[in-house]
Amino acid sequence: MMSKFLKIFVILLMASGISFAQSSSEVVEDFKPSSVNQPGKEYPMVNSVGRVRVQLSAPEAEKVQLDISAVKYDLVKDENGVWTGESAPQDVGFHYYQLWVDGAAVPDPNSLYFYGASRWGSGIEIPSDDQDIFALKDVPHGDLREVHYYSKSSDKVRRAYIYTPPGYEKDQSKSYPVLYLQHGMGENETGWGNQGHAGLIMDNLIAEGKALPFIIVMENSSVNFERPRGPRPERGAEADSTQRRRGGPMGGFDFSADFKKVLLNDLIPYVEANYRVIADPAHRAMAGLSMGGMQTRLITLANPEVFTQVGMFSGGSISAEDVENSPAFKENVKLLFVSYGSHELDNRRMGFGGDPKANTEALKEAGMNTHFYVSPGTAHEWHSWRRSLYQFAQLVFKN
Amino acid sequence: MMSKFLKIFVILLMASGISFAQSSSEVVEDFKPSSVNQPGKEYPMVNSVGRVRVQLSAPEAEKVQLDISAVKYDLVKDENGVWTGESAPQDVGFHYYQLWVDGAAVPDPNSLYFYGASRWGSGIEIPSDDQDIFALKDVPHGDLREVHYYSKSSDKVRRAYIYTPPGYEKDQSKSYPVLYLQHGMGENETGWGNQGHAGLIMDNLIAEGKALPFIIVMENSSVNFERPRGPRPERGAEADSTQRRRGGPMGGFDFSADFKKVLLNDLIPYVEANYRVIADPAHRAMAGLSMGGMQTRLITLANPEVFTQVGMFSGGSISAEDVENSPAFKENVKLLFVSYGSHELDNRRMGFGGDPKANTEALKEAGMNTHFYVSPGTAHEWHSWRRSLYQFAQLVFKN
Repeated sequence: MMSKFLKIFVILLMASGISFAQSSSEVVEDFKPSSVNQPGKEYPMVNSVGRVRVQLSAPEAEKVQLDISAVKYDLVKDENGVWTGESAPQDVGFHYYQLWVDGAAVPDPNSLYFYGASRWGSGIEIPSDDQDIFALKDVPHGDLREVHYYSKSSDKVRRAYIYTPPGYEKDQSKSYPVLYLQHGMGENETGWGNQGHAGLIMDNLIAEGKALPFIIVMENSSVNFERPRGPRPERGAEADSTQRRRGGPMGGFDFSADFKKVLLNDLIPYVEANYRVIADPAHRAMAGLSMGGMQTRLITLANPEVFTQVGMFSGGSISAEDVENSPAFKENVKLLFVSYGSHELDNRRMGFGGDPKANTEALKEAGMNTHFYVSPGTAHEWHSWRRSLYQFAQLVFKN
Repeated sequence: MMSKFLKIFVILLMASGISFAQSSSEVVEDFKPSSVNQPGKEYPMVNSVGRVRVQLSAPEAEKVQLDISAVKYDLVKDENGVWTGESAPQDVGFHYYQLWVDGAAVPDPNSLYFYGASRWGSGIEIPSDDQDIFALKDVPHGDLREVHYYSKSSDKVRRAYIYTPPGYEKDQSKSYPVLYLQHGMGENETGWGNQGHAGLIMDNLIAEGKALPFIIVMENSSVNFERPRGPRPERGAEADSTQRRRGGPMGGFDFSADFKKVLLNDLIPYVEANYRVIADPAHRAMAGLSMGGMQTRLITLANPEVFTQVGMFSGGSISAEDVENSPAFKENVKLLFVSYGSHELDNRRMGFGGDPKANTEALKEAGMNTHFYVSPGTAHEWHSWRRSLYQFAQLVFKN
């Protein structure tokens, strides 16, 4: 049950994140297979300026299109019924896309599939200068675990992913800090491990001595408990007291209420009872991207006794006024990290509650340990968030 | 580089596994969404006799088909451009399928995706009377881990999946037996955890006290090292001495040579150095389905000092002659489990080296602890193998 405020907000988010599509007709013929193709597949390919070229055999089709970054590109059919075509240059990093075949929106059969835009569908990787941060190297690797646990709040067995760092298995006397790391709207608990490459980013940082080893817990934060059906509230009235908040960024709708219960009452206790965790606020962090950043904001402001380390990636910021209303937040929180992709800032996406850079710097002047990071040349997409994790991981639990 | 013998063999395997398609025109209207649909999707659906109904919006398409169990079914378009149609009744359990839209073979955008038939594509689940064996229940759950380790034999970092049983994290003084469990041709290391539900099958068996807790290691056994290029051998000559074997079931081609090196020289040492494992032959099992069963046969016959517990699911059997040629196998192996789907036996798929039931019973009479299991009403598909694991897990490490 998403409120209309949230829906409008998400549409604005998506729209502001679209990169400027260059419409040059010159295509540089240095295409290489995407790194996230299915095994043995040549297409989709990417060239040195970030154009995506796809190919599909569809001999009886009348029209085939590539649909990426909210633009549709017509493909051209050859004499064998094979359609080929390419997009305008794309930003570096990861993008969701799909194909249209005579009016049917389908995944590209040649790509790997990722969960985003509320579906499992195709993704493509545009090489970046810093893709080495998530390269698979011969370094010690942590494990990325699919776990199932009983959530009393939602009365069901839920799935989460848990990254345990290299060395977790070998030295069984050691306990670790934990980061609770959230995905964005229309994504789920698989996003950070798959397209986010959180595990590989951490393995590489730890191998280089740039980050402390810690556990990362990734759950699905799009939680809406089924509520008992009663008389519908009047239009405009608030449906449920648990969703009510004082006038906040989401126009009064608290989209984190149910997830907050799962996180605080079920997930954290499960993790702390079952993994070798340092179970205190100094060693407990929360971060997230987009909607996950906004959830992080609401949950950490309201529960400053639980988390001391906070990261918000393309998901708003925390203002002096927020901190005035939550004095314990200022006192307890030892790290506040706020980040955006540069194209988001170009497009004046300032986040709610004002300019995120000005907000974050104001809190620094007021004595908090805050950091503001801008991912160069990226929009509201995964490469901004991989880089944000890469930066955040080097700061967290070191204060 | 698959030999032509192997290719022909696989084609025969696939063909013999096709279930008999009933062509009744009467369709029972009790369709329900498949349990492996994408979140929130109504289609594909399955009715009480196992017909699969799919739906796709494709307003400009001329022809849309459902392609399942090697048969294509035409869908019918309504006035809104939405195509709907259904298959003949399918065997219970899991099936791969795809859609055809004006000549393009594409995944169904409504299903979850699974790796099989050498691609990530759509899958569907036909309910069975015993699907409770892999139901997600409120019992203690093990973790299914994606792990990366360096393989010296292939000189690269490889991926495996490792299931650690419930309790593995809590009681850190306990060590466990290990089962190395292989997928089939065209599948990979994700198969047993995804469509095979190996973790849930084990969680449920352990909760009921029917199986001992053990670790399961799942790797990709379709290994072919890149070999130094030299002069091509003459047609018919053997290309590489490591691929040579005495005349065996694969017409002289040993398709397990490279995987055997990875398994014995890299994977087993990695697992035994990094997890709490009882590292002796009595606590080391190997099993696999189809090609994985045949690899299990070759590897365990040739290395009877490594494994004492052996399972072959729809992947041939071991004969008295095999055991004569490997006397240590008879002496050391404490469990040999052989299984098939009943439709495979109906179709006279006896496996190589003779009738699997007769072979397995002959070894029992010769004093070995052997078991032969037939999965009722299933073919060369995952439900046969889930049931095989369910049976095997109740026998393994108990001798």
